[in-house]
Amino acid sequence: MTTTERTGIASLPMPDLSSTFPGPFPTSPHADHIGKHLVQWLLRFPLLGPPDALRTLCDIVAHGVARTFPAAEPDGLLLCADLFLWLTAFDDTHGEAAAAGSPARLVRRIRGCVHLLADGEPPGDADPFDGALHDLLVRLRARATAAQYLRVTGCLRDILFGILWEAHHLAEPEHVTLRDYRAIRPHTVFARTLMAVAEVVLRYELPEEARNSEAVRQPESAVADLAGVLNDLGSYTREAARGVPNSLNLISLITREQNCDVPTAYEAASRLGEEHAATARHWIGELVTSDSAPLALHGGALESIACSYVWHIDHARYKKA
Amino acid sequence: MTTTERTGIASLPMPDLSSTFPGPFPTSPHADHIGKHLVQWLLRFPLLGPPDALRTLCDIVAHGVARTFPAAEPDGLLLCADLFLWLTAFDDTHGEAAAAGSPARLVRRIRGCVHLLADGEPPGDADPFDGALHDLLVRLRARATAAQYLRVTGCLRDILFGILWEAHHLAEPEHVTLRDYRAIRPHTVFARTLMAVAEVVLRYELPEEARNSEAVRQPESAVADLAGVLNDLGSYTREAARGVPNSLNLISLITREQNCDVPTAYEAASRLGEEHAATARHWIGELVTSDSAPLALHGGALESIACSYVWHIDHARYKKA
Repeated sequence: MTTTERTGIASLPMPDLSSTFPGPFPTSPHADHIGKHLVQWLLRFPLLGPPDALRTLCDIVAHGVARTFPAAEPDGLLLCADLFLWLTAFDDTHGEAAAAGSPARLVRRIRGCVHLLADGEPPGDADPFDGALHDLLVRLRARATAAQYLRVTGCLRDILFGILWEAHHLAEPEHVTLRDYRAIRPHTVFARTLMAVAEVVLRYELPEEARNSEAVRQPESAVADLAGVLNDLGSYTREAARGVPNSLNLISLITREQNCDVPTAYEAASRLGEEHAATARHWIGELVTSDSAPLALHGGALESIACSYVWHIDHARYKKA
Repeated sequence: MTTTERTGIASLPMPDLSSTFPGPFPTSPHADHIGKHLVQWLLRFPLLGPPDALRTLCDIVAHGVARTFPAAEPDGLLLCADLFLWLTAFDDTHGEAAAAGSPARLVRRIRGCVHLLADGEPPGDADPFDGALHDLLVRLRARATAAQYLRVTGCLRDILFGILWEAHHLAEPEHVTLRDYRAIRPHTVFARTLMAVAEVVLRYELPEEARNSEAVRQPESAVADLAGVLNDLGSYTREAARGVPNSLNLISLITREQNCDVPTAYEAASRLGEEHAATARHWIGELVTSDSAPLALHGGALESIACSYVWHIDHARYKKA
């Protein structure tokens, strides 16, 4: 990739969300407290080596979670932040390029996590990722109802499977259709997990019939899809600037499936993001004015989750070339 | 492998369970009804091609489930039988040798299942496995509480991961320790799923504090371990008679880890099975005399689940050379 091409990609426009999710976004007064807690938690469970990566990650997670649940109490925020940090560190350390070289090794690493998620005892020689996951599950169990606990641990299994799916296809993206990718992306971008965690952090529980209604499924899907598109647009720009765009990225897949150039694919993905944002905004509007308290709370949670993804792509982690 | 060696393996003794789980085992009066239903269900969802394999599988599943839950009402039995059939057919068709040749293909196949397990809409071009899984999930949701549904779908994810784990290690069992294997075997032998399904089939719900108690965890682990050992002893004999014992089998792993011959490993595994059976029998005895109705029901379910695995290894599917 030439320097001119890289400059061109860096200037590709992000979707216009000024009418759907305009900033500035509310943030929790506990953001700094979360950041300090994360650094301490990483001393107890050293998931990351390089101090630079550690500081950047703690910063983005603390401020991201503060925007995801701006009105939450500290305990729930800390649990959510630790979980999000764990997921990101796990993906950075064991997923992506590291995993593509040896999917079998990743399968072995995930086996330990599946054991804990299935209520297995932690092994005597637990590594920091096992130890931290066990700590998270104990705290989650203490705070959540049985169904909430099972819903979140189901989502975590789906993320781990998604990381595994990616590892098997980075080297052979030709087997991946856009439809496959869009089906798995809500998991790998962690959006589905955040939605399940919302009920635990904010202490509400959707009635089952509402959970399976269009009024809930539509905005959940739209927010999850929006999160995936935004993350891919941000990642593609960042990775292309380094000269190694991820082959499993919406932009790359559109260029291949629609046989078009990168700016055209980027434009199409941006439009898609705007459509998801409009759909999410419409359905969230219905939810937040609902007479049902849990539905209104869920609508508010979906809104702030969407805002946190909009906010994320402007963070330094995505700006670093 | 020589003919003498094969004959020698066929005569290796199974564990002596005459004092822990002696037959004959109670069976449901609905066994024939289940068998006929399974054949009909497979006409609707053609999961298996060869008529011989189909008949044998329907027979073992019908009579196995009839022994797993001898006192259950028909609706619950049919749901359990269909689920067990689906799992076995999925493993036979997409797992094991077929998967070892292309783990990435298996990952893609499982992705469709994960989508349905995570409440995704069924695709327009659903194949029989997707269609059948969707049917199962709709029926499960109608019968189960929210937590029961999530617990079973968590177990199904763990089985799918276990099948994937196996596919990555059939060709390189040297990366698998006995401890790893024993941690994943309760999932791949379907025992954990049957325990979760028991509550749905027999319509009881364990209190959460009981679920995490030693009184429940100990017999569950012992029954799951017993199921794995029995299945491995039966499979090893059958596969060795064909000249291709599975490298991911307790016997093979013991011969490698303890540097011993097959009869010694077989003997060790049989003793292990007897120990698990004795542990299971002890703890089940405590549960079935409990004052708590769900605990007593759970004890009865664990007992009949254990019996069904003891019964299974004498079935034709395991006798065929």
